Amino acid sequence: MKFIIQRNQLIASVQDVMKAISSRTAIPILTGMKIEVKQHGITLTGSNSDISIESYIPAEEDGIVNVENIEEGSIVLQAKYFPDIVKKLPEQTVEFEVDENLKVTIRSGKAEFNLNGQDAEEYPHLPKLQTDDSFEMPIDILKSLIKQTVFAVSTMETRPILTGVNVKLNNGQLSFTATDSHRLASREVTVKADNISDLSVVIPGKSLNELNKILDDTEETVEISVTNNQILFRTKHLIFLSRILDGNYPETSRLIPEQSKTTIQVNTKELLNTIDRASLLAKEEHNNVVRLTTMDNNVVEISSNSPEVGRVTEEITVQSFEGEELKISFSSKYMLDALKAVEVDEVKINFTGAMRPFIIRPLNDESILQLILPVRTY
Amino acid sequence: MKFIIQRNQLIASVQDVMKAISSRTAIPILTGMKIEVKQHGITLTGSNSDISIESYIPAEEDGIVNVENIEEGSIVLQAKYFPDIVKKLPEQTVEFEVDENLKVTIRSGKAEFNLNGQDAEEYPHLPKLQTDDSFEMPIDILKSLIKQTVFAVSTMETRPILTGVNVKLNNGQLSFTATDSHRLASREVTVKADNISDLSVVIPGKSLNELNKILDDTEETVEISVTNNQILFRTKHLIFLSRILDGNYPETSRLIPEQSKTTIQVNTKELLNTIDRASLLAKEEHNNVVRLTTMDNNVVEISSNSPEVGRVTEEITVQSFEGEELKISFSSKYMLDALKAVEVDEVKINFTGAMRPFIIRPLNDESILQLILPVRTY
Repeated sequence: MKFIIQRNQLIASVQDVMKAISSRTAIPILTGMKIEVKQHGITLTGSNSDISIESYIPAEEDGIVNVENIEEGSIVLQAKYFPDIVKKLPEQTVEFEVDENLKVTIRSGKAEFNLNGQDAEEYPHLPKLQTDDSFEMPIDILKSLIKQTVFAVSTMETRPILTGVNVKLNNGQLSFTATDSHRLASREVTVKADNISDLSVVIPGKSLNELNKILDDTEETVEISVTNNQILFRTKHLIFLSRILDGNYPETSRLIPEQSKTTIQVNTKELLNTIDRASLLAKEEHNNVVRLTTMDNNVVEISSNSPEVGRVTEEITVQSFEGEELKISFSSKYMLDALKAVEVDEVKINFTGAMRPFIIRPLNDESILQLILPVRTY
Repeated sequence: MKFIIQRNQLIASVQDVMKAISSRTAIPILTGMKIEVKQHGITLTGSNSDISIESYIPAEEDGIVNVENIEEGSIVLQAKYFPDIVKKLPEQTVEFEVDENLKVTIRSGKAEFNLNGQDAEEYPHLPKLQTDDSFEMPIDILKSLIKQTVFAVSTMETRPILTGVNVKLNNGQLSFTATDSHRLASREVTVKADNISDLSVVIPGKSLNELNKILDDTEETVEISVTNNQILFRTKHLIFLSRILDGNYPETSRLIPEQSKTTIQVNTKELLNTIDRASLLAKEEHNNVVRLTTMDNNVVEISSNSPEVGRVTEEITVQSFEGEELKISFSSKYMLDALKAVEVDEVKINFTGAMRPFIIRPLNDESILQLILPVRTY
């Protein structure tokens, strides 16, 4: 096996694939990175118990030569050292050579690394997903679906199914829903999905976080396909495979109140900064609670009290106010997460009394929903 | 007590003073920050067992008003919350007010914080150093003296005196020396010191690191004065006080070899990058050893070997080579630290055999010296 590659191309691919490689794994060879060399290009593979990532570097693309002098073959390299080596090589051109004893030589400029490789035959085969049953969407939309929901998954293993995001496809409507049973985040978009039957799967939140990190924010297409226990995301040069969580996701639609007793419309950033300040005095408490109190003249007061440290209050003027007077307490962290996720200038908040869940939505947009359960303070 | 202050001024001072405040201290009030308000300005104070920092904000300076509506007084505020509060206040103007019950009100825009203060009378008085016996130097020179030596102090408490930097003033020559007994770093400069007798004190490395962080890289003057157990650094608006370590600093001049058997002159960055690459394969070993071997034609080979992972070799061409052939092994970390500290394009390295300490100096500059003890590898 032998090839000469452009370092920048290699660095980017290595960084992507590293996201699937863990130094703690029950299968020792999975601490390594598989490199597979074909005449048409190089494939790097990393894998752990949750996800597998394949990154492909074509030998030639758009008239630019990335890989030359190719002799086919494959090898597994210790992933602990490989990324730093690649990053710090002195020249743009890097030469790889593997001998029959699995000794790997990496040369760049006058630097020469001789590394012990492992037999690629011992590396587990990734499941080949059949991709007829698939749908496509723009990468940037997928990224915003992830960002607007994944933070709300549960971090507790007591109900494992809640550590995932429920991905549903129903008549061309794709929805992502996450809840830790104290709050819920969901987002819906329309996709072209003529060739695929409706589906509902639960993807680990961690997998989606890694996927979001790897995908560039472009309008290019990602192809998504699902089997019984795996979901596959495929872009031009990347394959991202995640396991699917077992079990039934709870029916969440009943949680969402249908009517509203108090509605405010408010500048997102203003509310966010005010709640951020109100949360400062109670840093160490996990459910750092703030209180919202409606006042006269479209004014809302945000306050927080920490007996030992002190008290903070701030008034903001809302865009509009309708319905009953209200005093309600909630986790400032949940509120901040929700307000950051809606990504719009103005939000509408619908309350149904101090003890009922309330809903935050962008103004004039029903596709995003953030729901928060209040906290009893008396 | 009462005042109105510009937030930017306050943020900068609070950040400086926080460097002396620790949440773990035997004296509870030292977890707080003292605020002292006089008609001419505000003084913030933080202190721990090693250092104390005072930052002064003049009420008016260069025609710009920083503090207004002043009613004199003083208070101690819990430092855990105060910096974040100041940073996140909504407006540029911030109003402070303290009532007779030590309740502190901080107002900015529509935000109001009510905090529990502590009596400033209970805050320890900082020692007042007599500053007749002092000398001055430019801040940027002091910073480079610190940066070029402090990394070489010992981190082991077995010989406490080596955790400090030996600061000596001798006939207008100021020198900083640090050693952990495996390497030594020293730097000398000439200062104007007519009014001060010669001195030799040992300042904790940690104190100097904090001082370096606080001081801006300017050519303005810092005044330095010493008593039996404290050293004081004073700039225009800052007082930095550190304790001095007890005990005698070892005589280090005998360690420095007077003759040289092998001398190379080499591009600093080239050598640094090569050693950095050679050190990649042995990350976890604390004394990650590399070997330098002289070859023919002004070539030097840098190599490293880690039986389990592999081997790396790289040749560099040196600017000049004089004297005996040499094979020598040393800690790559020490070498990288030393090369970074010299801050010049070319260095001269003097070796006196494989078992003797060697010296790294900038070309044509005797004021900086980095010494490293080799490692026996056979």
